[in-house]
Amino acid sequence: MKTSPETQARLGKLTTSHGVVPTPAFVPVASQGTVKALIPEELKDIGVTIVLSNTYHLYLRPGIDVIEKLGGLHQFMAWDGLILTDSGGYQVFSLARLCKVNDEGVTFRSHIDGSEHHLTPELVIEFQHKLGADIIMTLDECPAPDAGVARVREAVDRTSRWAERCCKHHRSSDQLLFGIVQGGTSPELRQQSAKAITSLDFPGYAIGGLSLGEAKELTWSMVDETMPFLPTDKPRYLMGVGSPEDIIEGVSRGIDLFDSALPTRVARNGALFTMQGRQNIRKTVYKTKKGPIDADCDCYTCRTFSAAYLHHLFKCEELLAYRLATIHNLRFITRLMHQIHTAIQQGTFAAFKSDFLRQYQVTDEEVRLAQKQKWLNSPRH
Amino acid sequence: MKTSPETQARLGKLTTSHGVVPTPAFVPVASQGTVKALIPEELKDIGVTIVLSNTYHLYLRPGIDVIEKLGGLHQFMAWDGLILTDSGGYQVFSLARLCKVNDEGVTFRSHIDGSEHHLTPELVIEFQHKLGADIIMTLDECPAPDAGVARVREAVDRTSRWAERCCKHHRSSDQLLFGIVQGGTSPELRQQSAKAITSLDFPGYAIGGLSLGEAKELTWSMVDETMPFLPTDKPRYLMGVGSPEDIIEGVSRGIDLFDSALPTRVARNGALFTMQGRQNIRKTVYKTKKGPIDADCDCYTCRTFSAAYLHHLFKCEELLAYRLATIHNLRFITRLMHQIHTAIQQGTFAAFKSDFLRQYQVTDEEVRLAQKQKWLNSPRH
Repeated sequence: MKTSPETQARLGKLTTSHGVVPTPAFVPVASQGTVKALIPEELKDIGVTIVLSNTYHLYLRPGIDVIEKLGGLHQFMAWDGLILTDSGGYQVFSLARLCKVNDEGVTFRSHIDGSEHHLTPELVIEFQHKLGADIIMTLDECPAPDAGVARVREAVDRTSRWAERCCKHHRSSDQLLFGIVQGGTSPELRQQSAKAITSLDFPGYAIGGLSLGEAKELTWSMVDETMPFLPTDKPRYLMGVGSPEDIIEGVSRGIDLFDSALPTRVARNGALFTMQGRQNIRKTVYKTKKGPIDADCDCYTCRTFSAAYLHHLFKCEELLAYRLATIHNLRFITRLMHQIHTAIQQGTFAAFKSDFLRQYQVTDEEVRLAQKQKWLNSPRH
Repeated sequence: MKTSPETQARLGKLTTSHGVVPTPAFVPVASQGTVKALIPEELKDIGVTIVLSNTYHLYLRPGIDVIEKLGGLHQFMAWDGLILTDSGGYQVFSLARLCKVNDEGVTFRSHIDGSEHHLTPELVIEFQHKLGADIIMTLDECPAPDAGVARVREAVDRTSRWAERCCKHHRSSDQLLFGIVQGGTSPELRQQSAKAITSLDFPGYAIGGLSLGEAKELTWSMVDETMPFLPTDKPRYLMGVGSPEDIIEGVSRGIDLFDSALPTRVARNGALFTMQGRQNIRKTVYKTKKGPIDADCDCYTCRTFSAAYLHHLFKCEELLAYRLATIHNLRFITRLMHQIHTAIQQGTFAAFKSDFLRQYQVTDEEVRLAQKQKWLNSPRH
């Protein structure tokens, strides 16, 4: 494993029966079994090797048994690359209407039709066995970010007990089961959770509950509290974090895997990544721009269409807009990952990071933009 | 020109500087410079050779001068096949808020922002020169289908005078200017219009104002009144008509060109064409169907995904649903056109027609379905 001087950045490999993913890697979100608007061939063309689907969403629609009958999630989606499935813990505690959580499991109402459902650590493992993803996750309890320390401690303890039950129930040798560290914003609880989870010897560890939006400093301080307790010879996965600037920060701290709906969601809202930051394609300056959005980009969108055409599609709310913008943002991220690999390889990651962060601007306007047009954002992560 | 025994069906060719289109041909709608959700490579793959854009829509957004500056409509859309542009007459009289029509031209307010605009026959020709489509249309006056006969007579007379002015103003030798026959639902006025328009010797003739929805018998009786007055050595284009069953009916009457938003619009609403008729992919019967929507189909969607996956995407309102369904319906239509060509070639079109119409069902439910989800339908053709 190659590491970078001055930072904790490191190169690695995730090996599964559906291929090898060089790390650090970004995992695009395909919650409902589709990276929104794209086909598998486009993902391959972009350089995507792994996607994230969600047990919670697929359990509700179309149902785990439906996907099993159709040959598993890879066949259902026609995707022969890697798949990571989240356990649904985060979604049960954020999307669904929560009914009850106790040691046995969690009862909730569907965010779609209000129907009542019950999940346990064992069921979530069985579901993920049936889906057949390459990397699967333990069931974790995710209290609200503003929950008191007593509530977070209870959740940390329960998450540890659930992790143990997931471990025991996991029988599928070709699926890697990752543990999830929780602990809210308490350094003490983060450390306690990391120690408990790593004592179970998973093949990889995730840091959960840190997709805190604009509270970036808190996110990184919690990552810093957790990292010393994660073994260096296992992949470390920061869940729900994946903007370009956050990937750079995470890599420099030794994170190997990122997932986030942000790159694809902001694309559908017209915010396009360039090395100078997110550009709002709806701005009048693009109305007559002959060249591509990003002269440095080799994606299908930039090779084929002018910025003016993309501006026009967004102004007209044409479906093609969302697809072309998604292609661009995902290609930006896969190119960024290649640049990161090269910089680590050459021992220049610290300089790459400071150059990148100096150039790359995220303005408030674009943050606001990302909140708009709710129909395009649903379902959440 | 090959014709079919028992019917008026015939084979032909439309030759332009962007290629040759064998007729009868269907023209998918790309009103705003995009066949909704698809890229040019997909259209080619489906077998699409010609698309229809709309002068009215492109004039309002992004503006004719913008497209001219960007190298014309072919370059703007990255489409090197044929383009037909409608003059915008139909849209001004149906989509826009009409302010005034007189011999000089028409004043209207934009359906987007209410701004006032003025079009004349000469301006519409100039706009279409700037867009650079291969086939362009005269400006016509389209009164409401229920307008009285005096109002329709006035419109027919004005449409003839406008056609003459369009003809005189047309200077571009690599663009074919087609005349449009109007006349509402009056046989006498249809004949009068056909005689007046054909006296101007256009390279092709369109029949307008017959996209009458469910009033199919009236449509065909008006087509029957008009056809004897159109020269047999020029292409005949039935505007705004293009469901599978209507294409078959039109071909049997000697129509060479069809355009309609219907195949792509009903696709986005989940109505998928098969030889047995339109199938509603949202029905529960598709929830676990392993095979493709249509076992006879060779489109990307049917080659790659189960009906169950498509059902799931529609249930979840995933963007990919609209794209995959559009690919299927357009491929169904291009395959249908090939089947029609073969049947005419072999002198078996009459039998092909009766077989097709016996099998193919359009149920009321699907007609209702096509009216739903207005956001997917806009902008109207």
